[in-house]
Amino acid sequence: MEPRKWPRRNDAASIAARRDAIRAVVGDEPLAHDDEAWTRAQEAHTGVAAIPVSVVGPLTLELGAYELQEPAGTLRETGRAHEDVLVPLAHTEGGLSASMARGMKAAAAGGGFRTYVAQDRMTRASCFICKTTEDALLLARWLEGSLDDLRAFLAGLDDPSLSKRAKLREVKTHVVGPMCHVLWAWTTGDACGPNMMTRNSYALNMGYVMQNAPVQPERSILEANMGGDKKPSYEFFQSGHGKTVLAEVTLEPETVRRVLRTSVDDLIDLSWAGTHGAVASGMQSVAFTPASAIAAVFGATGQDLGMIGTSSMAHGTARRVEGGLNVSIRLPGLEVATVGGGTTLPYARSWLELLGCSGAGKVYRFAQIVAAATLALEISASAAMATAGSSEFFRAHHERGGLR
Amino acid sequence: MEPRKWPRRNDAASIAARRDAIRAVVGDEPLAHDDEAWTRAQEAHTGVAAIPVSVVGPLTLELGAYELQEPAGTLRETGRAHEDVLVPLAHTEGGLSASMARGMKAAAAGGGFRTYVAQDRMTRASCFICKTTEDALLLARWLEGSLDDLRAFLAGLDDPSLSKRAKLREVKTHVVGPMCHVLWAWTTGDACGPNMMTRNSYALNMGYVMQNAPVQPERSILEANMGGDKKPSYEFFQSGHGKTVLAEVTLEPETVRRVLRTSVDDLIDLSWAGTHGAVASGMQSVAFTPASAIAAVFGATGQDLGMIGTSSMAHGTARRVEGGLNVSIRLPGLEVATVGGGTTLPYARSWLELLGCSGAGKVYRFAQIVAAATLALEISASAAMATAGSSEFFRAHHERGGLR
Amino acid sequence: MEPRKWPRRNDAASIAARRDAIRAVVGDEPLAHDDEAWTRAQEAHTGVAAIPVSVVGPLTLELGAYELQEPAGTLRETGRAHEDVLVPLAHTEGGLSASMARGMKAAAAGGGFRTYVAQDRMTRASCFICKTTEDALLLARWLEGSLDDLRAFLAGLDDPSLSKRAKLREVKTHVVGPMCHVLWAWTTGDACGPNMMTRNSYALNMGYVMQNAPVQPERSILEANMGGDKKPSYEFFQSGHGKTVLAEVTLEPETVRRVLRTSVDDLIDLSWAGTHGAVASGMQSVAFTPASAIAAVFGATGQDLGMIGTSSMAHGTARRVEGGLNVSIRLPGLEVATVGGGTTLPYARSWLELLGCSGAGKVYRFAQIVAAATLALEISASAAMATAGSSEFFRAHHERGGLR
Amino acid sequence: MEPRKWPRRNDAASIAARRDAIRAVVGDEPLAHDDEAWTRAQEAHTGVAAIPVSVVGPLTLELGAYELQEPAGTLRETGRAHEDVLVPLAHTEGGLSASMARGMKAAAAGGGFRTYVAQDRMTRASCFICKTTEDALLLARWLEGSLDDLRAFLAGLDDPSLSKRAKLREVKTHVVGPMCHVLWAWTTGDACGPNMMTRNSYALNMGYVMQNAPVQPERSILEANMGGDKKPSYEFFQSGHGKTVLAEVTLEPETVRRVLRTSVDDLIDLSWAGTHGAVASGMQSVAFTPASAIAAVFGATGQDLGMIGTSSMAHGTARRVEGGLNVSIRLPGLEVATVGGGTTLPYARSWLELLGCSGAGKVYRFAQIVAAATLALEISASAAMATAGSSEFFRAHHERGGLR
Repeated sequence: MEPRKWPRRNDAASIAARRDAIRAVVGDEPLAHDDEAWTRAQEAHTGVAAIPVSVVGPLTLELGAYELQEPAGTLRETGRAHEDVLVPLAHTEGGLSASMARGMKAAAAGGGFRTYVAQDRMTRASCFICKTTEDALLLARWLEGSLDDLRAFLAGLDDPSLSKRAKLREVKTHVVGPMCHVLWAWTTGDACGPNMMTRNSYALNMGYVMQNAPVQPERSILEANMGGDKKPSYEFFQSGHGKTVLAEVTLEPETVRRVLRTSVDDLIDLSWAGTHGAVASGMQSVAFTPASAIAAVFGATGQDLGMIGTSSMAHGTARRVEGGLNVSIRLPGLEVATVGGGTTLPYARSWLELLGCSGAGKVYRFAQIVAAATLALEISASAAMATAGSSEFFRAHHERGGLR
Repeated sequence: MEPRKWPRRNDAASIAARRDAIRAVVGDEPLAHDDEAWTRAQEAHTGVAAIPVSVVGPLTLELGAYELQEPAGTLRETGRAHEDVLVPLAHTEGGLSASMARGMKAAAAGGGFRTYVAQDRMTRASCFICKTTEDALLLARWLEGSLDDLRAFLAGLDDPSLSKRAKLREVKTHVVGPMCHVLWAWTTGDACGPNMMTRNSYALNMGYVMQNAPVQPERSILEANMGGDKKPSYEFFQSGHGKTVLAEVTLEPETVRRVLRTSVDDLIDLSWAGTHGAVASGMQSVAFTPASAIAAVFGATGQDLGMIGTSSMAHGTARRVEGGLNVSIRLPGLEVATVGGGTTLPYARSWLELLGCSGAGKVYRFAQIVAAATLALEISASAAMATAGSSEFFRAHHERGGLR
Repeated sequence: MEPRKWPRRNDAASIAARRDAIRAVVGDEPLAHDDEAWTRAQEAHTGVAAIPVSVVGPLTLELGAYELQEPAGTLRETGRAHEDVLVPLAHTEGGLSASMARGMKAAAAGGGFRTYVAQDRMTRASCFICKTTEDALLLARWLEGSLDDLRAFLAGLDDPSLSKRAKLREVKTHVVGPMCHVLWAWTTGDACGPNMMTRNSYALNMGYVMQNAPVQPERSILEANMGGDKKPSYEFFQSGHGKTVLAEVTLEPETVRRVLRTSVDDLIDLSWAGTHGAVASGMQSVAFTPASAIAAVFGATGQDLGMIGTSSMAHGTARRVEGGLNVSIRLPGLEVATVGGGTTLPYARSWLELLGCSGAGKVYRFAQIVAAATLALEISASAAMATAGSSEFFRAHHERGGLR
Repeated sequence: MEPRKWPRRNDAASIAARRDAIRAVVGDEPLAHDDEAWTRAQEAHTGVAAIPVSVVGPLTLELGAYELQEPAGTLRETGRAHEDVLVPLAHTEGGLSASMARGMKAAAAGGGFRTYVAQDRMTRASCFICKTTEDALLLARWLEGSLDDLRAFLAGLDDPSLSKRAKLREVKTHVVGPMCHVLWAWTTGDACGPNMMTRNSYALNMGYVMQNAPVQPERSILEANMGGDKKPSYEFFQSGHGKTVLAEVTLEPETVRRVLRTSVDDLIDLSWAGTHGAVASGMQSVAFTPASAIAAVFGATGQDLGMIGTSSMAHGTARRVEGGLNVSIRLPGLEVATVGGGTTLPYARSWLELLGCSGAGKVYRFAQIVAAATLALEISASAAMATAGSSEFFRAHHERGGLR
């Protein structure tokens, strides 16, 4: 086929044309899984990718139930429950599944993980370019005082393209020169919500601000990086995005020795050196390999893979306590969903079902399971780094003819 | 099944046991794709995840051919070629495929993308904890002067677990207190290489440094965050990791208007506000949505999904030039492979074939295609943000009964 | 004198003893300026340092008058005035005074600077280490809901060491693992206020939190770096510290040519390259040399020289507008005083008088003058960098026998 | 006087005119210290500022002697010596002098500080804007291969305005889009060197690069923020600027208790919380109050006060070791001088003499004393924060009628 005429649509003829054009190169297999759902998920749909999924567990955790309080959108914990969960991991990294399972085992020996959702927010970072800094400051002050009016405006719009599920919670401004950056902060229910809040933010920008502002901005820009849309930022490392989740567990010294084959002392030293290494290298996160865990769960459960980087922002700690070693992780920006987007597709929905996280009312549960699974891998991967330290070990192996 | 007895191995009985245990919940579909290859990729293998793949194009680009120069490991460009490529994208984000295709079209009108690989490095960040700062400084000075000896040591090891393809290129030290952090910098051929360089680095740490150092470190830690192993860092944003790739294109004003439905002025203003927004929010990258493009190509081609965040570090620019608007992107840490790991699996290998990037000798080509595809999406997504600015547009749509 | 017996007190005999011990080395001059005030400012007082002060001007600006609104501590602008001010600069950097004067001249031609105080806060970042993450989250939620009680507690303390001028405005928490970091945010009137808010924060920590918290913290730490006490941080780059001040001016093209000897195009390109250079180098601030201006004013006026680094955090912009080039600077953390500390001393008070900024009710005025003077230097120093670009210039000078 | 006619020159009449114009406001005192030296230090010289100076000590340290190795400019340690030094501190912060003295005492009990200079570099960050990314890459490659030619060019210039003392050591490039950023890295002897390296860098830019480059840049910009000229950056936090100095000491438990009135456990916990607080707040440095110490020494000794912020970048550590607590600080960018600039002036030279650091051959000594004094304050200030934790202490004081 002449590439210049590459068909873009998802009608049957176009799909077939694309498949015919590439079948000789890619073979039948990736073109064989027809499902009407695929064509609703993307334009120019042509085939599928398959990634192997391991199932590891049990992940033992005590997790919270939460509800949003109106109108501020703060979270209230309504209960806590103990559970054992099996976790699906889509990845091709040898050792990852076994390592996470080891971490789960070590945690379970100490009573399991305890997880908490501290906050829920989804944010669009718009920007109004004004004539002067003075105008930008006036606009900012007006915006910060208009939260009720902005909510009323949205409530009054009878526009089916807008989302009623996306609720405006806060307006935060930041003025630099003639720019008035605005963070529109929403909750989006069990959906991840980028599209719904984008449409609503656009309505606010064009339908309210550009019409009613006390100074007329020269430009309205829908997204201008004051937040962290698929790019890690300090703004969201600190103030959070999606679900801000914390997980912790206290590891008993005997478990550290027997299951993790290292010691509390070793892990404390590793944490110390790793934290200072992160500082020295200008690494925002302080952690070991949270992205490996998060990517594997995201890949299995239909999450947005483009949000793996931001969702993997992590701040881990380790502290010697009376009963052993308290370890924790804070994931400030876990952008997850249990409804909408990729979660509605085959495979993804199945794996969410395995977690008991498919559909409405499940997103805080899901976020906490992801955090606990991430901490499980952190524990085990750290232990592997910490114990890779014995020169006797190396010499013994080397003299036997090779590292194995 | 009793979760405490969850089987971990990949023998047929264990796989079957896991499947039987979850079949009632997940259904048959995700458990139906047997392939011996899956079990080599992960422990506790149980099923698959499938992600729809679109194919968009043509991506018109002029790319370089490169060879590594010995022993420094710098890249030499040996030729350049024009090509049209079809790009597979695994994702579920509505609009992404169409938007990237639009960016490709706009770039093609200006002669296509031009791409360059500036550097190739894979790094393990070890750390030696010494008794004192003085010892750490002595160790650092010795390490920096030992590059030839370290290479000779590795060459002399007859250990099948070590990789001859991972070649040590540089040793960089950083002393903070009694810690001597060491960046072991390797090239790893067409593989991504984390495992091979990890084993080799371990051999250096335990077999050479701990045996021969002029001062005896108290501890050797294999990885301590001085680099950026699956976590973005300034170290790698600047000095690079994996492949450091640049892509650029000059967009003609008429193309900007006709294809992107915006103007050079709009895009310049957007770039200005977006760059200052990034600064204000403490965002390391300056770009729009590189992670969306990189995740979609990674998902289709068997790359490590845990490396999406680091590979998406990006520094984009836009500048008015005589012929229109020069736009570029620098991806300092593109961690990609065309051999090994997930690239050897079904589906992934097929989609790599579509790109002409399967197997040895293809990794620089692949890196450049990823960079060009990323810039294509940047162009189109930016244009969408820049044009979302007309109040007439909003009013017209709203009066017609809704935003569509 | 035997160094081991070095006297530490400020009685006359000790001062004399120290002077006698070093007179042979340092000479009479630095030991000759007796003033009782010196001994109130520091322990082990011995002599003085003198720094030359230039006076440049006029600095033409339009500045705002502000009042704090109770109880939130937000600023309300109550008026604006035009003024011409002479600025004292303590420094030894050849060219600095002349360059700032040139910037003032360029700005005056465009009507002068316009300045704004956006916020006023002084913050102590305490930390409570709890037994668990759960406890830390409980403590955080309790603290965020206790603002009124905390204020009442302070109001009820009859302790002369506490400051009534330091008013608690906000409580912000940040939980990482078992740590509950707390930002106690105060206004401190016309004083800079570190000591008064430290004492008050200590009273809150020990007298209220440790007594009344719903969970008992293991430790209370008065300062633990969640803010930015004399160290630049993103927290304060964004949310502000001391006075958050903005200054702007629009430079006419003719002025740029005649006074600054460059062009709007040159300055736009410089700003573009300098902003991207800052991003590439991991520089938090985007500006040219704000610290030079701020240090010179601080040195003359008795400000805390240890706060020069934090006060110099800066975000500058340049944008082509209808009348020429709009340039601005945002100083998020200008830590200044017109009462207390070094401002009460001879010399310092005199130079503050020159600015009309000595004593109560002057701190917002002073902050705005500092910001305008800083922007004046930014403009001129940028112009010098932008015009240092002509190869003809270099050749001409070189052929004449030297760069002058 | 009419401000519009404010005289700018340093002839006697202009100085007198300025003094007469402001005498009624500022009084006689700040205008009374005539010295011909002042007028060489700044334009528009008018008066002086005086800052009280305390002298504290003894600072007990073991410091290194260093020489630069040609041509690479690396440092070789040629000896080490023990010394007791008295330190002059210009500041007005109550408690600072006493606190630093306490830290000195605690360190001396453990044998004193040990200090090391790891590197010496002064850098100008120029930028060449090219037509395309391709050109910028070509230019970068050419520049990195031209070090010898660049040195030969400078050596061949017979231009009295250029400095022979500023020696070019490295050329580092960084390409982003069409920008080729260049770090010209120099050593500048005992001078701080910004002016000499600026003139030399300008000569390289205009006299060599713009004449000989294989591609013609569109613009040459002398400084474009790729480094960290008076603004903290990760580039210099990591790779260093001015003198990179490390200091350490091991504190005995008994000393910690008796002199610092806290415990090793308390200090370890404080360091842990303070490090994680720094990470959470996006603070580049990890330390307590290095700027206070550095500003006080800079103010007394004629250093550039505008460099206090960059010179205060600091990375501190604390680690429990056999003999007690090892504490250290790394100052990556200490920009100090013992010749030139403000060091040649009265007062400043006297206080440098007290340190044995006036004139040629003293700059490494001076840098190490500054680092040790900084660590002394860190130790004592940390101890004050760590011990401010007893609720009994608070209650006892409060019941007695007030905190004292």
